[in-house]
Parts: sequence; C-alpha cells; structure tokens
Amino acid sequence: MLPTLADIEQAAERLVGRAVRTPLLESPLLNEAVGGRVLVKAECLQVTGSFKFRGAFNRISVIPPERRAGGVVAISSGNHSQGVALAARQLGLTSLCVMPSDAPAIKVANTRAYGAEIHFYDRATEDREAIGRRLVAERGATLVLPFDDPHIVAGQGTVGLELVDQAKAMGAELDAVLTGCSGGGLATGIATAVAALSPGTKIHTVEPAGFDDMARSLAAGSRQRNEAVTGSICDALLAPTPGEIPFAIGAKLLANGLTVSDEEVCAAMRAAFRHLHLVVEPGGAVGLAALLAGRYDARGRTVAVIASGGNVDDGLFATILNR
Amino acid sequence: MLPTLADIEQAAERLVGRAVRTPLLESPLLNEAVGGRVLVKAECLQVTGSFKFRGAFNRISVIPPERRAGGVVAISSGNHSQGVALAARQLGLTSLCVMPSDAPAIKVANTRAYGAEIHFYDRATEDREAIGRRLVAERGATLVLPFDDPHIVAGQGTVGLELVDQAKAMGAELDAVLTGCSGGGLATGIATAVAALSPGTKIHTVEPAGFDDMARSLAAGSRQRNEAVTGSICDALLAPTPGEIPFAIGAKLLANGLTVSDEEVCAAMRAAFRHLHLVVEPGGAVGLAALLAGRYDARGRTVAVIASGGNVDDGLFATILNR
Repeated sequence: MLPTLADIEQAAERLVGRAVRTPLLESPLLNEAVGGRVLVKAECLQVTGSFKFRGAFNRISVIPPERRAGGVVAISSGNHSQGVALAARQLGLTSLCVMPSDAPAIKVANTRAYGAEIHFYDRATEDREAIGRRLVAERGATLVLPFDDPHIVAGQGTVGLELVDQAKAMGAELDAVLTGCSGGGLATGIATAVAALSPGTKIHTVEPAGFDDMARSLAAGSRQRNEAVTGSICDALLAPTPGEIPFAIGAKLLANGLTVSDEEVCAAMRAAFRHLHLVVEPGGAVGLAALLAGRYDARGRTVAVIASGGNVDDGLFATILNR
Repeated sequence: MLPTLADIEQAAERLVGRAVRTPLLESPLLNEAVGGRVLVKAECLQVTGSFKFRGAFNRISVIPPERRAGGVVAISSGNHSQGVALAARQLGLTSLCVMPSDAPAIKVANTRAYGAEIHFYDRATEDREAIGRRLVAERGATLVLPFDDPHIVAGQGTVGLELVDQAKAMGAELDAVLTGCSGGGLATGIATAVAALSPGTKIHTVEPAGFDDMARSLAAGSRQRNEAVTGSICDALLAPTPGEIPFAIGAKLLANGLTVSDEEVCAAMRAAFRHLHLVVEPGGAVGLAALLAGRYDARGRTVAVIASGGNVDDGLFATILNR
C-alpha cells in the first residue's frame, strides 16, 4: 500500500505540462548567513501557490470514469482546496471544499476562483471528517484526502524527484532536506524519492512548536496527537496527527523532527522576501526558519529547504515585514 | 558594434552555472483577468535579484588580464551595482559602485554585502558620469556601464533567449513581450534575441509616466530626454535618455513604447504577490502593470512580461500591500 519510487515517477509523468518544475534557488547571502550551502525549492511558485496541486492532480487523475460525475470533495485549511479545485476543473470534475471558517482570505478566494463550491466549518467545535463523509455520501462524490492516500503521497513525492535532479545539476550533494510537516504527505513523499535516489541525505520534518505531532510520533514510535487545534501562525500545519500512510513511511525514512516558533517563522519569511524575492506563507517557511534559527547546524553542509507554499494574506505579510 | 544573436549565445555560455535560468510562470487567474495568456519571466529570482547580473558578468568576463588589477567601477541606482559587485567578486576583481544617496536601502546593503565599496552622489545636483570618470582614472579601473555597452546588452539578451525557448516548451506562440525600460539594455537585448528567433513577436517597452524617454525617442526617431530626474516610484527606471547602442537597436526592432502610473505599478506588485508569489520591485512590475491596466489588449493573445527585479524595501512593500 505504501507508494514507491515507481509511483512517484508515474505521478511525475501525469504532471508534465500541468505542474511547474519549480526552481531550486540559492542566495550567496543566505549561504554566508548559515556558513553552508542552502538550496531553496521554491514550491510557492507551483500552480495554486503550493505543492498541494501535485498530489491533488495525481489523485483525481485515477478516479475511475463511473465515479467522475459525482465530482470530488476535499477537506483542507486551504492549500489542498486550491490544488483540488484547479486539478478537478482541469480534469472536468466538479469540486466541493470543506474549509475552516478562519482560513486565510486568499485561500478561500482562490479556491472559489478555481471553480470550487465551499462549505465552511468551525475548526474548534466541528468534526470536519464527519462533514466530509456526509457530503460525499449525499453526492456520490470521491473524497480527496489531504495526505492519507498513496496517490497523494506519490504526487507530493515529485518534489523530491525534482530536488535530487536539480541538486545534482548544481553540483550539490545534499546532506539534508528540511521540510514542513502537517499530516506528512509532502515530507514522506519526498523521503520516498530521496531515500531511493540519494540515500545519504537525511530528511527532517519541521513543525510549529506545540504542533509537533510528527516529531513526537517519530520519537515515540507511534502516532501522537497535538493538544491544541489552533494557535500557530502556520495555518497550513495544524493537522492533529500524522496520517497512517505517512507515519508508516516516516518511521522508516525520516530523521528526527525539528520545531520552530512563530517569531522564527516570521524571520524566515522576511529572509525569503529579501534574499530570494519569494512570497512564502508561514507554513511554507518553517524549513528555512529551522535553518536560520540554528535548529540544524548547516556549517560546511549542503541543505535543501522546501518553501512549500505562498498563500498568505496581504495584511499579515505587511505586518510581518514591518515587525 | 551592435550585439548579435551570436553574442547573446556566447553570453549564455558564459553564464551557465552562474545565472539562474529563471522560470516562466503562468497563473490561471491572471490569464482570466486579461482574457489571454500571460507568461511572466521571473527575473526577480535571478542572482542579486535582477537581470543586471547577466550583463555585468558577461562584461566583466571580457576584461583583459592586464586591466583586472584595477578592478571595476559601476554607476547605478542599485540593481546594476549588485550585479557588478557579485560578478566582480566571482571573477576575482574589486568593485566600486557609484550610487544615488536615495537608493533603496536593500540595494545599498546587498551591494556592500557582495563586497563592493560604495560612493554616494546626489541624484538631483551631481553628475554621476563625471564622478565615475574621475574614480576610473584614479584607480586604473574599468568602467562597467549600465546599458551602453554591447557586452551588457548581449548579457541582458540571454533573458530573451531563455524566454523564446521556454515559451516554445509551454506550447505558446508569443504575440508580444512587455518589458520595462530605463537605458534600454534589457529591452533591446531581448529584442535582438527575439527578432532572430521569433520574428512575429512584438517587443514593447514600458516606462513610468514622465520618464518615457524611450517611447518618445522611438516616436521621434531620435534620442529624447526626460525633464524630471526624480519623482517615480520606479527607482530603477530613471535613466534620462536611451543609450546610444540600445537606441540604435530599438529604432529597428522595438514596437511603440507604453507608459504606466505609480498606482498601476502598485496594483501590479499586489497582483504578482497574490497570484505568482513573487516579490517584484516597482521598476520590475511595469510590464505586468501595462497589461493589467489595459495599455496592451491581451484578449485572445499570448503575452510575456518581464518581472525584471525584486529589490524593494520591506517598508515600501508593506505600504503597497496595505493600500
């Protein structure tokens, strides 16, 4: 049931001409700041502004013909919604997205602009899984899970495929990859590709402090839950516990998990603005934040960080720049 | 004396492994906004945050060995300075940059961080060319002009080389390219490449209102000057008149020039933030601004815009986002 390198390569073929082969960027000044070589996978430049399009398109591509008329339902804080909405539209299916009422305005607006219907829920009091199941049953729709699905993990794994290839082209041997982690689809998709193609490279997840369910799960050897459900600036990284499939992969392929504070995330967003000219959302900046905060010692090493998304509201970004 | 496609191809070879092959990005929502296909050449992701590195590296590469010890001098509002500073450092030469005292702080800080010495002048009262000539004589340095040099134009022309290649790979036939214009090095470098490789594509310059010396020069058939020397948000596009070499090329290869207001530039910067997750500086946003303001009718057409730079101060960017 766990996705393999072959599944990721098949996803990459499906994504040709659909997903952006996002650039791997480097800044001499960032390199100097950490005393090593920092390669930033600019996945905020992906269609819909995050890596989520990759998994969504790969998953929706394999819905059998007789299920297509019912459309798809997605449950997501916003980036998965946008990926599902655009992928569904491109593949000729309708989409309905179940989104928290406190999702960033840009994520709601874009999901709607890509043609999805939206159903809001309250993050603190409602059970989004139950809402999703009900809507799926009512419509004969297919539920497109955000991470606990082998096709989703394989789609996100194409980030890792590109990363290994691009690093090689830049003459870089990767000591480590630092990637944000919510349910674990991206981190373990990347880990699957990198373990096969660059086995000496360590993959570290990075999570917001207080939402470090993956780090604790890896340490404990079993899936742990977060106590809080809100309270981090990283709206994209609040999944309560790792997915089953991601944890099964992660337990074998991930190194230990790191955590960062909201302040460290904001500092990383400013660094990405200044040195890379990228708009990175809070949840997309945790990898760079861990590096700049010294959670990973990059001196003399080559480290890739995944800037996984860029959907952040104007007002919040302005506030962070002005801090 | 005018650079040719072969000169641009030679520059591209010199830049392999040095310059970023910047991505050509597309947003479904931007396409819908203009009713056509918009391809954005994200040159703000170039090393040093603008296309200027290309020309600077190409120019400094051909300084003969006996002239290298004197280093280089550059005169620039900031992006050319950064390009020269980093290229000189990579090629083992010292650099001195003559910059206006009102240059954006980020441009000054980065120029210094790349190892250049800085000499400030007053944009309104001092003659920067005279200062440059004096410093060059004192040091036995080589003056690296910002645009009026065939190696600079050829270096900037590599943007056009990549653009044609990337558009073809995306199945796009370019009706037009909209590019910002100050002295004209970028616009006419691109025009040289595109005229040779995609002769049906029109190249339009875009300038800030009141600083439309190239547009008026093209209309008049001779080089015209701007009356004002300050007063646009586009700090990178204030050159008083087109360069001789750029104008000689432009008179043959450029279509008519367009102009945009500061407000239209700010709207384009916000659009790039929201839909592309790119940090584009004012002078880098004029092409997109012209498109979004309807200066060029993109309905049913395919248009490339050059997002030529991303070096903008935090505070100004925050103010523009909050407007």
